[in-house]
Amino acid sequence: MAHRVVIVGAGFGGLAAVQGLAGTDVTITLIDQRNHHLFQPLLYQVGTAALATSEIAWPVRHLVRKRKDVTTLLGVVTGIDTQNRAVLLDDGGTSAYDTLVLATGARHAYFGHDEWEPYAPGLKTLEDATSIRRRILLSFERAERETDPARRAALLTFVIVGGGPTGVELAGAIAELAHQNLPQEYRRIDTRMARIVLIEAGPRILPSFTEDLSAYAHTALERLGVEIQLGQAVRECNDQGVVYGDRPLAAKVILWAAGVRASDAAVWAGLPADGAGRTRVAPDLTAPGHPEIFVIGDTATINAWRGKPVPGIAPAAKQQGMHVARTIKMRLRGNAAQRIFRYRHSGNLATIGGRAAVIDFGWIKMRGWLAWWAWGLVHIYFLIGVRNRLAVALSWLWIYSTGSRNACLITQGEQRPTPPQ
Amino acid sequence: MAHRVVIVGAGFGGLAAVQGLAGTDVTITLIDQRNHHLFQPLLYQVGTAALATSEIAWPVRHLVRKRKDVTTLLGVVTGIDTQNRAVLLDDGGTSAYDTLVLATGARHAYFGHDEWEPYAPGLKTLEDATSIRRRILLSFERAERETDPARRAALLTFVIVGGGPTGVELAGAIAELAHQNLPQEYRRIDTRMARIVLIEAGPRILPSFTEDLSAYAHTALERLGVEIQLGQAVRECNDQGVVYGDRPLAAKVILWAAGVRASDAAVWAGLPADGAGRTRVAPDLTAPGHPEIFVIGDTATINAWRGKPVPGIAPAAKQQGMHVARTIKMRLRGNAAQRIFRYRHSGNLATIGGRAAVIDFGWIKMRGWLAWWAWGLVHIYFLIGVRNRLAVALSWLWIYSTGSRNACLITQGEQRPTPPQ
Repeated sequence: MAHRVVIVGAGFGGLAAVQGLAGTDVTITLIDQRNHHLFQPLLYQVGTAALATSEIAWPVRHLVRKRKDVTTLLGVVTGIDTQNRAVLLDDGGTSAYDTLVLATGARHAYFGHDEWEPYAPGLKTLEDATSIRRRILLSFERAERETDPARRAALLTFVIVGGGPTGVELAGAIAELAHQNLPQEYRRIDTRMARIVLIEAGPRILPSFTEDLSAYAHTALERLGVEIQLGQAVRECNDQGVVYGDRPLAAKVILWAAGVRASDAAVWAGLPADGAGRTRVAPDLTAPGHPEIFVIGDTATINAWRGKPVPGIAPAAKQQGMHVARTIKMRLRGNAAQRIFRYRHSGNLATIGGRAAVIDFGWIKMRGWLAWWAWGLVHIYFLIGVRNRLAVALSWLWIYSTGSRNACLITQGEQRPTPPQ
Repeated sequence: MAHRVVIVGAGFGGLAAVQGLAGTDVTITLIDQRNHHLFQPLLYQVGTAALATSEIAWPVRHLVRKRKDVTTLLGVVTGIDTQNRAVLLDDGGTSAYDTLVLATGARHAYFGHDEWEPYAPGLKTLEDATSIRRRILLSFERAERETDPARRAALLTFVIVGGGPTGVELAGAIAELAHQNLPQEYRRIDTRMARIVLIEAGPRILPSFTEDLSAYAHTALERLGVEIQLGQAVRECNDQGVVYGDRPLAAKVILWAAGVRASDAAVWAGLPADGAGRTRVAPDLTAPGHPEIFVIGDTATINAWRGKPVPGIAPAAKQQGMHVARTIKMRLRGNAAQRIFRYRHSGNLATIGGRAAVIDFGWIKMRGWLAWWAWGLVHIYFLIGVRNRLAVALSWLWIYSTGSRNACLITQGEQRPTPPQ
């Protein structure tokens, strides 16, 4: 019987492992709790009505349809029997493995304040994105009908917590939506009066970038109309707004881009984890004491970037997935030597609204409109398939030239009658 | 003060009235409970993963952004105070009118069996369509994991109740999905074994078409692999399947395309209605006793088609909206003569899968692939805006040439934490 590889998670890491194992004599079972692979770097554009959901998501089984060695299962993992080498699924089924790859990513985290989640949703899934889009657009709609000035101001105040790339990209996109795309659509309110407030606990936004790019992004965001509050930790989120430092701010839309927590992979398999739930893996990406289990991507932590932790970005997960695939192939050829993973950083990118970006590839730094075009080309290049590249390029060119966002839909608001399934 | 027109419903009828009133000295308030206008004729394509939601829906306020005379409100109507001429909204607000246009459409109806709705959803809104898409795709996913043959067969049985255009289009699209698009994506099941059963109570499908086109559609659907049951009323829908005639059929996906019921417009205003809740309007489309209230589209009934009832299709609603706009303009010029509405039927169209259609324009009848292309061109022509025409044309050409459906996303499954709004 062929060597059985079970891969849990069809994100960047899991798919890279599948790809790297092509042509190998293994049978692969690919398990994910969603039926689609998601291009998370563009998720904020779904949240801000620039792209449609289907433009950045692909059904997993469609992606691997030509790989007869891969069986795709839609299922929720409930545990891992490391003794008998089997993954346990929610319907009572099991998936036996010889080698297991855990690549289940992360969710947003609230630093011990999970009660904030209903008021300050994060952005990790398609559902998160359509829910955020719904909140943003509904707040403008409600403001149009609101007569009380204070309540109207709260409806037109948008708070983004966290000044990393996601926070910066959300803030810039909402500012453009409010200040450029929507004004002519409303009669009773002036959407240009909307306040977009970005709150960052550290001393500067985009801390993973160099200081000059970070300063440029700061100025560019302010020029778009974003208010930036630095050195301010958020101490409360509720239905009235936020409290940061010792100041309350009335706001009906709060978005969380401040922290992540790993999936439960470490819990399932009883593996050692850090404070954020990430499995501490060995230099070859295996779980301690389990050479047959690899943990990769956002759900693992390893100091493999010149002694620093590998960042939680798509290229890192991909490199780890490819590394795991090569290790499995070597082992199948009888070479059991430990293969140490080393991360190669290709760069940092972030957009500031729809006309500017900052890029740091190390050998070259870019900012402004030229960086925006470079950012766009890089992202279209990394999308999967001609169809989606065309669709996203069309959407961007349309917004760029007409200022009209096509995906301003408020959906998912009503609950359907309880479905039978 | 300018004459105040309140239009409730931004479907085909409501928008046609807005359009017809351009350049008139009136102030218009356009109220809808959703923020988007929906191109319902293509909704089944969202339900069967051919098109994305944003390709057939447009934010209402974006459509009318250049009409400074139109104020758009997202709101739910709870009643109409016909004495004081005001529309009552769910937030306690009111909208005063001099002329009121009710164009609030219809929902699916279960002939006194509302308890069937959770098991047999209908297709009227974007949420309906994504929910149906979710059910269809999840059933294949569950079948792939199911080991019991009987349960697997039930998961692979799709029942469509109602043989009108919507039922025929759904059945054809699901048959193509199962028999042509999905087979190579599954490893444990053969999706070509899926049964698609179309149940129609009358003696033939597409009863609004001529008998020869109806017979052609019957044969064409069977060639796609659809089983057609005629003269069979459905007597039960539950989580096990359906009972039709005296035969039970185990099926996990049941779709309802068998009947509609008007919105509550007649109830709000205390107007006389027929058994399906449709307001019986006067020959000029006004409500009896209320010359200042017009009721149009699917929520009204009138025998204005050479003595027959006007059909519940988009062109009829549009003609009524235009008629109302012209009547309002005449009245404002002091001409109070009753203007009788006469419906002009332009034709019937329905697709059978993605390669054939039947068209009856009266002066010409078409069927087969040429009719499919004509159907496609007609529908792209009636879409709003260059952007969506391009997007839909791209999607169709893609499916036509590659057989890959781009929108196979399972979303909306998980409930988010209770939102604050």
